[in-house]
Amino acid sequence: MTNTSAGNFFEDFRLGQILRHATPRTVTVGDVALYNGLFGPRFAVQSSDVFAKAIGYPRAPVDDLLVFHVVFGKTVPDVSLNAVANLGYAGCCFRAPVYPGDTLAATSEVIGLKENTSRKTGIVYVRSTGTNQDGTPVLEYVRWVMVRKRDEAAPAPADHVPRLLAAVDPNLLGGACPPIDVGAYDLTLAGSPRRFDDYRVGEKIDHVDGVTVEEAEHQIATRLYQNTARIHFDQFAAAQSRFGRRLIYGGHVISLARALSFNGLANAFHIAGINGGRHVAPLFAGATVYAWSEVLEKSAIRGRNDVGALRLRTVAAKDRPCADFPLKSGDDYDPAVILDLDYWALIPR
Amino acid sequence: MTNTSAGNFFEDFRLGQILRHATPRTVTVGDVALYNGLFGPRFAVQSSDVFAKAIGYPRAPVDDLLVFHVVFGKTVPDVSLNAVANLGYAGCCFRAPVYPGDTLAATSEVIGLKENTSRKTGIVYVRSTGTNQDGTPVLEYVRWVMVRKRDEAAPAPADHVPRLLAAVDPNLLGGACPPIDVGAYDLTLAGSPRRFDDYRVGEKIDHVDGVTVEEAEHQIATRLYQNTARIHFDQFAAAQSRFGRRLIYGGHVISLARALSFNGLANAFHIAGINGGRHVAPLFAGATVYAWSEVLEKSAIRGRNDVGALRLRTVAAKDRPCADFPLKSGDDYDPAVILDLDYWALIPR
Amino acid sequence: MTNTSAGNFFEDFRLGQILRHATPRTVTVGDVALYNGLFGPRFAVQSSDVFAKAIGYPRAPVDDLLVFHVVFGKTVPDVSLNAVANLGYAGCCFRAPVYPGDTLAATSEVIGLKENTSRKTGIVYVRSTGTNQDGTPVLEYVRWVMVRKRDEAAPAPADHVPRLLAAVDPNLLGGACPPIDVGAYDLTLAGSPRRFDDYRVGEKIDHVDGVTVEEAEHQIATRLYQNTARIHFDQFAAAQSRFGRRLIYGGHVISLARALSFNGLANAFHIAGINGGRHVAPLFAGATVYAWSEVLEKSAIRGRNDVGALRLRTVAAKDRPCADFPLKSGDDYDPAVILDLDYWALIPR
Repeated sequence: MTNTSAGNFFEDFRLGQILRHATPRTVTVGDVALYNGLFGPRFAVQSSDVFAKAIGYPRAPVDDLLVFHVVFGKTVPDVSLNAVANLGYAGCCFRAPVYPGDTLAATSEVIGLKENTSRKTGIVYVRSTGTNQDGTPVLEYVRWVMVRKRDEAAPAPADHVPRLLAAVDPNLLGGACPPIDVGAYDLTLAGSPRRFDDYRVGEKIDHVDGVTVEEAEHQIATRLYQNTARIHFDQFAAAQSRFGRRLIYGGHVISLARALSFNGLANAFHIAGINGGRHVAPLFAGATVYAWSEVLEKSAIRGRNDVGALRLRTVAAKDRPCADFPLKSGDDYDPAVILDLDYWALIPR
Repeated sequence: MTNTSAGNFFEDFRLGQILRHATPRTVTVGDVALYNGLFGPRFAVQSSDVFAKAIGYPRAPVDDLLVFHVVFGKTVPDVSLNAVANLGYAGCCFRAPVYPGDTLAATSEVIGLKENTSRKTGIVYVRSTGTNQDGTPVLEYVRWVMVRKRDEAAPAPADHVPRLLAAVDPNLLGGACPPIDVGAYDLTLAGSPRRFDDYRVGEKIDHVDGVTVEEAEHQIATRLYQNTARIHFDQFAAAQSRFGRRLIYGGHVISLARALSFNGLANAFHIAGINGGRHVAPLFAGATVYAWSEVLEKSAIRGRNDVGALRLRTVAAKDRPCADFPLKSGDDYDPAVILDLDYWALIPR
Repeated sequence: MTNTSAGNFFEDFRLGQILRHATPRTVTVGDVALYNGLFGPRFAVQSSDVFAKAIGYPRAPVDDLLVFHVVFGKTVPDVSLNAVANLGYAGCCFRAPVYPGDTLAATSEVIGLKENTSRKTGIVYVRSTGTNQDGTPVLEYVRWVMVRKRDEAAPAPADHVPRLLAAVDPNLLGGACPPIDVGAYDLTLAGSPRRFDDYRVGEKIDHVDGVTVEEAEHQIATRLYQNTARIHFDQFAAAQSRFGRRLIYGGHVISLARALSFNGLANAFHIAGINGGRHVAPLFAGATVYAWSEVLEKSAIRGRNDVGALRLRTVAAKDRPCADFPLKSGDDYDPAVILDLDYWALIPR
């Protein structure tokens, strides 16, 4: 029995293995307040118990991304402590609402393994599930990471690469959103008159505002999620790394972009699923983040006429306002782009 | 329908117009904790449920200034997103206590408009009201701001400048303070033996301590209030501005000064009204804030013998201790002064 | 009656004097969330109401060190506002659990006084007690500080140096830990299989991770505790001091080291007593803190077979990883060491 955990290396994973992650976490109004202070979201449903109750929630639900980050944080010590890179997400689905007072725990199943030709690293695919105190799944997603081997010579399991869907079927969305009383949804209080029918596919929206990130902010956020990835916290070690700086948790950028997106998407109150996301470039403290979104697709949800789903691409850029919607520069991303996120948001019809 | 909000310009306002502001907000113990971490207030009534109950509150009320900042924050997107300057406050009155769990919303009425001779800007006067979940007003105040015109050539409404009182009538104070059991008010636990009768008009108090402000702190505070004014958050844009720096929200200075004022005014537990305030100079991160106060006036409140009202001038200065009470330098303010606030605080008799 | 408090000077203290400290404080889930964001502890008992209930708590208790810091903070204005140095702690015992919603107050008894030969300062020994809303003691500890005299010529009381024990008797531990259902303690969720019998005296554990401290972080933490010691907050004054910098509250280092110690001590879920602690060197923002621990002693607790006590020495160092357990360099401490803490932690048997 070693006395500390060094995390799992590539050769430690087995296909079909189930990892029960440590440190269950009761999410409280304290976490919500700190999340608000760090990101400043203004979606009325998550901000006001009164607004949430009026439309059919028992109270204001916890922000979807706070739920995501807490679940993600639990997986880090077992899945990605020895990761070289986070390669991607897919099939993320919010399956039940989370309220203050709920306790989240997480498990992951290893669904794919593929050693790299260098034999120094391999790709690990996991399907992670966050559950509440009743054992009800609240969130599922697949992610894949490149993980170091402890020993290059160690034998690797046979390659198995899972089939991943390009997008979540919109008919599977909405488990975390109770039936909404659209007549009670006050568009003025929510901050915008625009509903499902007011958006068109191909429409691009500049979210206008920019927000500068401080070291204290991303550290506080990432610790709040009990995410232990060293590169976010240890400047002494980072000084000797390729970047020379603490790297900001990719999920921090997602939360910043989501909060900025209120200006233009005020009624897209719930992230119901994430189809995929790419952290195109690293972010460091001192940079200012801007964002824009494109409506990729619109879909009804079978059996629901209260809300529809907008498939959105939200792009974040650093130190570059987004009035002209920066994305590609030739075959590559524009050098200012740091995030390219593809997700489904629910919005009243 | 434009897809994002650019805020209102001067020619968009109409006398008598009612603006219902977006994003109702449930205030929680989480917000209170974060406010405490950011400012460090030590007034016993707001700090302890037990102390508050002993004197007649159902539990510890939310700090008056946190209520003010949340209500103020809601007005920003509609009133001052295109403001050149915040010119003043008047007639601010706290009308009902706010407790954790209450949900605040805000409306503003346009009560004055005056185009400037340049025709590039105009002054907008609004009376803003914060209400709780029952529709009860908890806070009212007037503020006036200089707002840009979208189009210099746009016709402006006729000038109308409202009459504003120099001070709130003390007999109108106290709506947010239930009857206090003065016998149960423990002066030792509260931190000072001094009550209403122990202060004299003209007395000046140096609050001694200084506190240095960090970028992360004022950003977290200002986002907590869902205040979206860009100048507080966007260093990339600020670098090209007159100051080159993110400007700290004026309300941050008020909260810092109020917390510092505990040393000398420990029993002045409730800000009942704000007569006026002037942000004399901008504050930037890295500066250290000191404060001093003068007792301008003392008044009984009709019908109450539990508490009296001290009319206080609290002055904040940057990078300058206040043992000699800096205020004016000739006709101008001392160059270190950043805030000159005139308000009524309640204190046990 | 002076209008502000300048704190007590050495000649103001009397042997046997009882100081009732100001500002009772209701601790909430908001405080817990902010503490988590600032330090990132991962002990399951404090993190999850469900985990805590399963083993015998009514809900997740408040982190022991948050309780300590809140009680300590209350003592500062009366005991150490004019301190030159915090010299030590002893006999710290957690006597009852604290839950969100509890209200803490603090008193101190002066148990020793000794003027220094310079006659400019003296050492004050106090026994401080934190109590909850029922008057139940939750925490007791002795600390001694070197305090300035207001007037060198002032007569000093006769010397009285209290006898202090080198360590808390382990049979006095556990008042803040209800009987634990060890069968219900889920080692996987808790993050480690290691229990009491798996540790051996003399074992050293490198806690591996490092965390860089920002000015905003330690200021927010220290204000959260309503600790008013100026040296932590006032850069304008600090610039003229010996260090030129704001000094980080010593308790901040203890909390950082405790959170880091999860990796290796995941099941040592409760700090039951602190035998002594030395802040070997100051810490300033920008430095990265690492930690390691040694098992000094193991003890059963009379009458309990659910938990045992590990006596631990946890050492924190700045800008120096601790794989080789830095401590002494000749007769002195290694120059990187900043904290040498000796305490008892409870762990399931």
